[in-house]
Parts: sequence; C-alpha cells; structure tokens
Amino acid sequence: MNWRYEVENQIFELQYAMDTFYFLICGALVMWMAAGFAMLEAGLVRSKNTTEILTKNVALYAIACTMYMVCGYQIMYDGGFFLSGVTTVAQMDDAAIAGVLAESAEAGFGGDAVYSGASDFFFQVVFVATAMSIVSGAVAERMKLWAFLAFAVVMTGFIYPMEGSWTWNGDAVFGLFELSYSDYAGSGIVHLAGASAALAGVVLLGPRKGKYSSTGAPQAIPGANLPLATLGTFILWMGWFGFNGGSTLKLGGIGVANEVANVFLNTNAAAAGGLIAALLVARLMFGKADLTMALNGALAGLVAITAEPADPSPLLATLIGAVGGTIVVFSIITLDKLKIDDPVGAISVHGTVGIFGIFAVLLSDPDATFIGQLVGMLVIFGWVFGTSFIAWFAIKAVMGLRVTEEEEVEGVDISECGMEAYPEFVNQ
Amino acid sequence: MNWRYEVENQIFELQYAMDTFYFLICGALVMWMAAGFAMLEAGLVRSKNTTEILTKNVALYAIACTMYMVCGYQIMYDGGFFLSGVTTVAQMDDAAIAGVLAESAEAGFGGDAVYSGASDFFFQVVFVATAMSIVSGAVAERMKLWAFLAFAVVMTGFIYPMEGSWTWNGDAVFGLFELSYSDYAGSGIVHLAGASAALAGVVLLGPRKGKYSSTGAPQAIPGANLPLATLGTFILWMGWFGFNGGSTLKLGGIGVANEVANVFLNTNAAAAGGLIAALLVARLMFGKADLTMALNGALAGLVAITAEPADPSPLLATLIGAVGGTIVVFSIITLDKLKIDDPVGAISVHGTVGIFGIFAVLLSDPDATFIGQLVGMLVIFGWVFGTSFIAWFAIKAVMGLRVTEEEEVEGVDISECGMEAYPEFVNQ
Amino acid sequence: MNWRYEVENQIFELQYAMDTFYFLICGALVMWMAAGFAMLEAGLVRSKNTTEILTKNVALYAIACTMYMVCGYQIMYDGGFFLSGVTTVAQMDDAAIAGVLAESAEAGFGGDAVYSGASDFFFQVVFVATAMSIVSGAVAERMKLWAFLAFAVVMTGFIYPMEGSWTWNGDAVFGLFELSYSDYAGSGIVHLAGASAALAGVVLLGPRKGKYSSTGAPQAIPGANLPLATLGTFILWMGWFGFNGGSTLKLGGIGVANEVANVFLNTNAAAAGGLIAALLVARLMFGKADLTMALNGALAGLVAITAEPADPSPLLATLIGAVGGTIVVFSIITLDKLKIDDPVGAISVHGTVGIFGIFAVLLSDPDATFIGQLVGMLVIFGWVFGTSFIAWFAIKAVMGLRVTEEEEVEGVDISECGMEAYPEFVNQ
Repeated sequence: MNWRYEVENQIFELQYAMDTFYFLICGALVMWMAAGFAMLEAGLVRSKNTTEILTKNVALYAIACTMYMVCGYQIMYDGGFFLSGVTTVAQMDDAAIAGVLAESAEAGFGGDAVYSGASDFFFQVVFVATAMSIVSGAVAERMKLWAFLAFAVVMTGFIYPMEGSWTWNGDAVFGLFELSYSDYAGSGIVHLAGASAALAGVVLLGPRKGKYSSTGAPQAIPGANLPLATLGTFILWMGWFGFNGGSTLKLGGIGVANEVANVFLNTNAAAAGGLIAALLVARLMFGKADLTMALNGALAGLVAITAEPADPSPLLATLIGAVGGTIVVFSIITLDKLKIDDPVGAISVHGTVGIFGIFAVLLSDPDATFIGQLVGMLVIFGWVFGTSFIAWFAIKAVMGLRVTEEEEVEGVDISECGMEAYPEFVNQ
Repeated sequence: MNWRYEVENQIFELQYAMDTFYFLICGALVMWMAAGFAMLEAGLVRSKNTTEILTKNVALYAIACTMYMVCGYQIMYDGGFFLSGVTTVAQMDDAAIAGVLAESAEAGFGGDAVYSGASDFFFQVVFVATAMSIVSGAVAERMKLWAFLAFAVVMTGFIYPMEGSWTWNGDAVFGLFELSYSDYAGSGIVHLAGASAALAGVVLLGPRKGKYSSTGAPQAIPGANLPLATLGTFILWMGWFGFNGGSTLKLGGIGVANEVANVFLNTNAAAAGGLIAALLVARLMFGKADLTMALNGALAGLVAITAEPADPSPLLATLIGAVGGTIVVFSIITLDKLKIDDPVGAISVHGTVGIFGIFAVLLSDPDATFIGQLVGMLVIFGWVFGTSFIAWFAIKAVMGLRVTEEEEVEGVDISECGMEAYPEFVNQ
Repeated sequence: MNWRYEVENQIFELQYAMDTFYFLICGALVMWMAAGFAMLEAGLVRSKNTTEILTKNVALYAIACTMYMVCGYQIMYDGGFFLSGVTTVAQMDDAAIAGVLAESAEAGFGGDAVYSGASDFFFQVVFVATAMSIVSGAVAERMKLWAFLAFAVVMTGFIYPMEGSWTWNGDAVFGLFELSYSDYAGSGIVHLAGASAALAGVVLLGPRKGKYSSTGAPQAIPGANLPLATLGTFILWMGWFGFNGGSTLKLGGIGVANEVANVFLNTNAAAAGGLIAALLVARLMFGKADLTMALNGALAGLVAITAEPADPSPLLATLIGAVGGTIVVFSIITLDKLKIDDPVGAISVHGTVGIFGIFAVLLSDPDATFIGQLVGMLVIFGWVFGTSFIAWFAIKAVMGLRVTEEEEVEGVDISECGMEAYPEFVNQ
C-alpha cells in the first residue's frame, strides 16, 4: 500500500514536471513573438523611424513584464489589486502544491494534474506583451516615444488585465460567463484588444504627414526593409504555436495531447491558407505578387484561427485562415480610405480579422453561441477602446502624443533616440 | 487488479503525451527552417531580386502545407490518392487511439507507445516545405514567380510524396525495401530530392544574365546582405536539431532518449566540422576567409550527417561533416565551370553532399549496404529529376519559366512583386 | 513483484527521457545564442567590418564545439587530458545506464534520475561557445581573423575548461570547494570568464583608429544596423531561458519543475528590469531614449541574474536586473574614459555586471558567503585574464594581433574575407 502511494505520487510528479515544461516552452515561444513584432514593424516603417520603433518594442515588452508582475496578474486572476500581491507569484507554488498533493493522494488518479504557478505567470505575461505589441505598429512614425510608453504602463497594468479577468478568469462581468463567450487563445481577448487600443490612439493621433495627398488619396509609403518584415512574420508564425498550443494550459494525457497536436496543425494550416488567399486576392486586385499583403495574410490567418484552433478539421482551418487573409486585404484598403493611417496594417490584421475569428468559433464549436460571441466582442472592444481613448487623451493633455512636424519630417530616430538605425546606408 | 490497469494506462498516457510534445517541438523547429532558407536566399541574391525571393519562400511554404494536406500525406503514407482522404488526418486520432489503448491494455507494457496522428502530419508537412525550399535558391534571380509556384504545387503534392512513400513508408517500389535503403532523416529523400528538382529547373532555365563573361568565365555576383545569409544559416542549424532529432519518431524510454541525444550532438558536430573544413579549404584556395563558403560548409555538414546522425561517434560525425564541407567547395566551383548557375549553391549543398551523406551511412551502420544506398540514390534522383524536368517543361510551354531580359536587368522585384526590398538603401 | 519492477523501470525510463529531452531543448536554445551574439555584434560594428565579425562568430562556434569535444569536456569533467577521451562521450551512455538501472532497481524510487551523457555534453558545449562569443565583440574592427581563431582554440580547449573544472565540477583548486562558490548558470564561470579574456585581448590590441580624438576624448562610432542588434538581443534573451533553465541539470519532479519555472520567470524579469533601468538612466544622462544602452541593459539584467536565477522573488529578480542595467551604463562610460575600446560593450555587460551577479547571489541564497563569492570571482578573473594574456601575447609574437592601419581604414571585410557584407548599400 505504501508502494502504491509512491507510484501514484511518482506518476503525478512526472505529469506535473511535463506540464510545467510544456508551459515554459510555449511561453518562451510567445516571448519570441516580441522579436517578431519588432522585426515586422521595423521592416515596414521608413529607415528614419526605425530606431524608435525598435526602442518602443523592446521597452513595451519590458514594461509589460514588469507591470503585469506588479499588478496585472493580480487583477486578472486573483481579484486582488495593484501592489498587494507581488510576492504571491513566488509563494503560490508551495501553497498550491501542498494542497494538490494531498488531494491527489486522496483521490488516487482522479485529481487534476497541475503545473507550477510561476510557469502560469510566465505564460500569461508574454500574452500581455503581445497585446501591447499590436499597438506600436499602428501608431508608428509619428507618436512620441515616452507618450507611447506611458500608455503601455496603463494598458499592460490595468486595461488588458481587467478584460482578461472578465473573460479567461470567468469573472462574469456583464453576464459574459452565462453567455459562455468562447475564445481559446484570444482572437478577441488579446488581438482585438490590442487593435482596439491602437485604433483609439490612431484616432487621436491622426495620419502621418504625406500619407494623404491634397485630394485625400492615400499614398503608399514603402517599408525600408522587407527581409526584416518577412523574418518578423516567420517569427510570429513560429511563436504562435506556443500562443495557441500553450492555451490548452496543460499537456496531460492522450486527449489533451491530441488536442495540442490539432492546435499546432491547425495554426499552421490557417496561416498557410491566409497567406495564399491574400497573395491571390492582391494579385487579382493589383496585378502583382504583393509580399506585404501576403505577410499580413499569414498573420490574419493566425489571428482568425486563434479563437478556436482545436476543433476544426485541417481543411476547415485552412479555409478559416483563407477568409481571414481575404478580409485583411479589403480591411487595409478600407481603413486607408477612411484615413485611419496604420503603417503596418495592425488594426486590420488583429482587429478586423480578430472579430472574424471570434465568430469563426461558431463553425466548429457547438457550445459557442452567436449572441455569446457578439456580447464578448462588444465588451472587449467597448472596454478597451473606451479606456484606451481616455488614457491616450489624458497623455495627450499632459505631454502631447505627437512629435513636431519638423521632427516627423526629419524622422523620429534622431529626435527621440538620438541615433540612426542605418547610419551608413541611406542617402536621401 | 483494477488499480494495476489504471497505473498502466496512466503511464501510457504520459508516454503518449511526451512523445507527441516531442514531435510537435521538433516540427516547430523544422518549420523554423523555412525562415532560415528565406533569410539565407534573401541574403545571397542581389537587392533588386530580394522581395521576389522572399515572396517565393513564404508562398512555397504555404503551398507545401496545403498540398500535403490535400493529397501529399495520403500518397505518401496511406496509399490513398488526392482528395480522398482530406478529413482522415483529423479522424485518425480517435481510431488509432482506441485500437492502441485496447492493445496496450492487453499487452501490459509490451505495446509500442504512439503519438498523435496530427503531430505526425505536422512533422511530415514541414519536411515537404524543406525539400521545396531547396529549389527556390537555385532558380533565383531569373525565374517567373508564378511558374515557380506552379511547380511547387506539383512537387509538394505529388513528386516528393511518391518517392517518400517508396522509401520512408517502405512501399518497396523498385525493390528498395528488400535492399533496405537507409536514410534516417533524409539526406537523399529530402535534400537530394530538392536538389534534383532544382537541377532540372536550372537546366531548362539557363544561367543569369552576366553570370558568364563572353569567354565563358564565371563572374562573382555578390549577395546583397551577408548578415541575413548568416542568420539564415544559424536558423537552419538550429532547426536541423528538430529535423534530425524528430526523425527518431518518438522519444520513448532510455534507449531512444540516448539516440536522440546522440543525434543532437552529432548534428551539431557535423555542422561544426563542415564549417571549419570549408573555411580552411577556401582559405587555401582563395587566400581569404570566405564567409559564404563557411556558411555553405556548415550546411553541407548538416546534409552529410542527415542520413545517419545517430550511430557515428561525435568525432566521426565531425569528420563526416568536414568531408561534406570540403566537397561543397569543389562542387560549387565545378558547377560554376559547367555553367550550371546556382546563385546560393543549393545544388551543391543538398545534392552533391546529399549523395555523399547517403553513402556515409556505410561508415557507421552495419546493416546498410552499398548497393542498397546506390539504388536508393539512383531511384530518388531519377524519379525527382525526371518528373521535375517534365513538370518544368510543361510549365515552360504553358506560361514560360523565365522573366524577360529587361525585367531581369531591372530586377524581378519590380516586375513580379511591384515593390523593392530596400527602397531607401540602394543607389546604383 | 515482477510487475512492480516493470512499473518502476517504466517510470524511470519516462523520467530519463523527459530529463534528456529537457536538456536537449535547453541546449538548442543556448546554441541559438550564438546567432544572437553574431547578430548583435554585426549590428553594432560598421558595415565595412561586418563580414569579418560574422565569420569570426560562426567560426568560433564551430571551433568551440570541436575543441570541447577533442579535449575540453575531458579536462572539465573527467580529469583526463586532451585526446585521451575522444570516444568516451559516445561510450558513456551505455556504461552509465547499466549502472544506473541496476542502482534504480535496487533502490526502488530512491535512485536519482539521470539523463543521457550525450545530452549533457551537448548542453555544456554550447556554454563554451557562449563564453567565446563574448570575446569577439570586444576586439571587433581591428583584430586579425586568424589570430582571433587561434585564441579561440586555446580558450575553448583549455582556459575555460580548466576554470570550469574547478568550479562546476568542484575540483576544489585553491580551496574553492570548501568556500562553496555559488554560481548557478555562470555569471562568473561563463560571462566574467569571457569578459576577462576579452579584456586581456583589448589591452594588448589597443583602441580602434579614430576612437579617441587627439585630445583623448572618446568618439561615438555608430553601429551600421540597429535592427540586427535588436534582433540579436531578442535571440540572446530567448536563448537565456535555456542557459539558465537548463542549469538545473534536470527537470525531475515537482520541486525541480517549480525551480525551473522560477528560473524562466526570473530570467525574464531581470532582463526587463535591466532594460527599463538602462533606458531611464541613459535618458537622464543623455536626454534621449538610447536604444543601444537599452539593449545592453537587457543583457546586463540577464548576466546579473545568471548566478542565482532560482531563489529570488520575481520582484527581487527585476531589481537585480535593474541594478545590472544601471551599472552597465556607467561601466561603458568609464571604460571609454580609460581608453579600453570595446565596440559592443561586451566587457561591461559580461564582466562588470558579471561581477555584480556573483555577489547578487548573497541577496537570496543563505548558503553563499561573501568570501566564497569573492575568492571565486578572483580565481576566475585571475586565471582567465592571466592565461589569456599569455595566449594573446604569444599569438601577437607569432602572427601579430592587429591588421595594418591601411586595412583597418579600408575595413577588415576586404582584407580578411575578400567580400563586403552589403556591397550595394554603402556609398561613403
């Protein structure tokens, strides 16, 4: 009998270690997405604004990690508030484990396997950074660096954690819980949220100088470094395996392992479908193989499948991705006409397609309802857009959002960072 | 007794989950190789052809993933054909699991551990993309984009899956099975196959304008961005751990874990040996430390060890890599003399050295035979070169393979993609 | 009873496989750091010296892997010497396993889990390369390529393995063992060691031409490609999860899994803290958001936490990183004043902050002592600086360390490698 107890515990320990390991690897892949956003955005802006967008990207990641530790995680998962629970993250393991081991010993193999609390934090914190990374691209080439970082503090420490607590933590505000809003890895909770915050910023910020001609026609402003943008897309594609795959929250036994495998396969298939669709649509519309549209198509496919990557068949996943890749082309064109100037297409990729992703859940998840998805979408957009607008507005009042016209013409690299990204290459 | 059954199942579930996880991580690493090929090739072409090579690389990956799902996987592993089995990939898990669990319950611990069918598909599909990525480099800077993508459809949906079914699936065409052709992770099945398809394309396509002087002497055409090429090599090096490591197909117990560890160690050692050898040989021949030769040397070392990365000692693996790194230098020079214009050296790295890798198996695997390796090599080359030649020829007849001379001089970025890769940098 | 034995062995096999897998993944992440160093350094030098620094980086990695296999691993862990044990790495698995399995069968679940000897070698060998990568940045833009590679042979085959054997292998030279020098993943053993070797080289080499004005004031020499430097930093950040995480040496059960999770979380937190601190300090001192300082701040945070990433709370880890990020700014300024010309700030990041990291252990590890850390630090610095100085001096005497003044002005890419990194971009 003593030996039986030992065997059960031994198996439990292995499961715990494996699930923790799985979570950490997925978290490392999501952290890697920060590099993806940085490269994508650095490749799609002009060279004179490259150092600044890089600085924003590395700094927002660091701020997200710190703010989520200081207060965001508490807001999202514990109901605590601000500084109260800083050490809890470290303490949680011991308390959790003691309880769980006791439970497991009583329950035989009936108890759920758990994983390290620190690994959960690590996985969650990189999601916060992802949401914030979406913003930096949309406001590129004209927003003040420190104004952006001030917003990052509010977004990662408060705005995102609040909506995260209502949804993933099931805090049931606005009746979301009863309506069972279904969003596996966050087409809405992460991507639409990021895009909503970006949209609020862009509305207050206005378009880049020269983006619209005197007659209002949008002008193409080509990115300075397309290999970098392509690299960023590949990095995001790879990191998304962790983003969606880790959202099973554990690896567990056969059932969950199969689910995780489906998630990897479908995530990849949706990105492929999105890329092909965007490439073909752009070919039909513009007559050329438009690389930046293809890249945005792949990302759109990824966003589209994120709300439900486990249930669709691979073929359905490819098609969901393809619809996302098609939508993104028209969304980019439409936003351009509306004079919503988004240098990298982030609002279209993560916002417009994020909304599609929320409803694409209905195609394969019989438990999801249209009304549940709709309310969830509206709550996320309403909350994040509203609070972000207030935050951006307050920052604008205090320190201003936009660099001077002179600085914008010269490039924000010099005015904000004091150094050029490619000092030897450009001669214009 | 009931408890004993539970313990056995619990252990089996853990094993299943771990093996699936292992497969997925290796698959993600191989997917990452697509980024490596894209960066390597983008770094080694001229800036005026960079957007186009990037577009080809992202698009071929998406096409490979989609075609292999639609028909390739069925051809390679099930004997089914084309669209018949699209949903099978999703369905296979349930059927497979039910059978395996029953078997495992009967057999006690005697049953083989298995992994998710979806994870197997995910791992296999990224291999297809790898084979196709080899082609894009060799035909760079002068092939029409849509002609290339049309070939990608045929290669990933039919040509590669057919030879894959004969070899890895043991379908025994041409008596391969009886001859026991041994190719662990695909020096022949993937790399030589990709190079054979590339060679057929290059033969029909002809060299780049300006590659050969009026007297026929090859002219150096330097790549535009060597940091990118170096990054691509590092990415490939890293991804190769998944490529070779995942080819054990499971992690299992001690024996397999040791094998996997040997594979990681030997893969790394062979790359190191290849790099050092190519660097030294190039130093002796050209008097300088030739970075692009060193990079190709590392890749050659990786290709050379791929057919048998588990059995050699680390020292032998280093030496096999070093021979590969030496061969690649001479192969590149020789192909140049033969006016086979391969801008990135892909045919030498994956083809010439792939052949060496097939025979290097004989150095450490007592079960492999010279005749088996020879027949396998000839079948792969014959099939892939032959069918590819027909496919390229048909595409040439229908839409043409080559851009116009004017477009080639101007650069294919403008004619094919309508955008420059570095619009602010170049002024020539 | 027979069945009981089977269950025990089965669980043991799973544990063995998982720990081996964990080690290999961490090793692959550390290998990836080689790419990080290459990109960071290539981004921070001038374009005319980029090919050469890339060549040094890929070659040093290959040399490190080969030399550590030929003799380094034997020196560090077996007490054997030079070529004696080449095949031992391959042989160790069988011997180790037989013993361990027997032990495990006797001990029931009491025996320690182990992992593949080859996985241990793979993990260790990438650490050697990391130490050597630190050197290449500091001596950039003026050292002869082959002189550098000659030093790499000595450093990775002898100097590093010797100090590694005294510390991690507990060989107790100079009483280190009794003083229990505590250095989890190597703030001292790897990072300070690399920086000490770099410092010895820089002292003998002298500053770059033009670094100091006629009055001795340091001149800023901007790096050619900041996106590349940023990418390199992200790669290092990601790879560091393997560097610190793998240093638990196994994943094991609940206790170790929690430790690993803490390590991932704290490693990330320290990097974030370092980045924010360096950004703010540089803002206060220079009035701008200095990207290169921010990047060095993140790396400094990582180096600072490396000696003890498991014990601190996340908040303490953030603060340790922030102190590292602050120190690095002042260290860079100070070394500049001392005319120690280090183009990428490697000596400050890895050396100055490495020393801080050694003593930061005292903040959270009650077993560490000030005197133990001090002696360890002095031994590492004394040994590596001393032997490196001798090695550099000998190389200088035999072949010279520095390129000619003419070659330095023209750029070492042409003189050492015969090719430009960006042949189409630069026109100065």
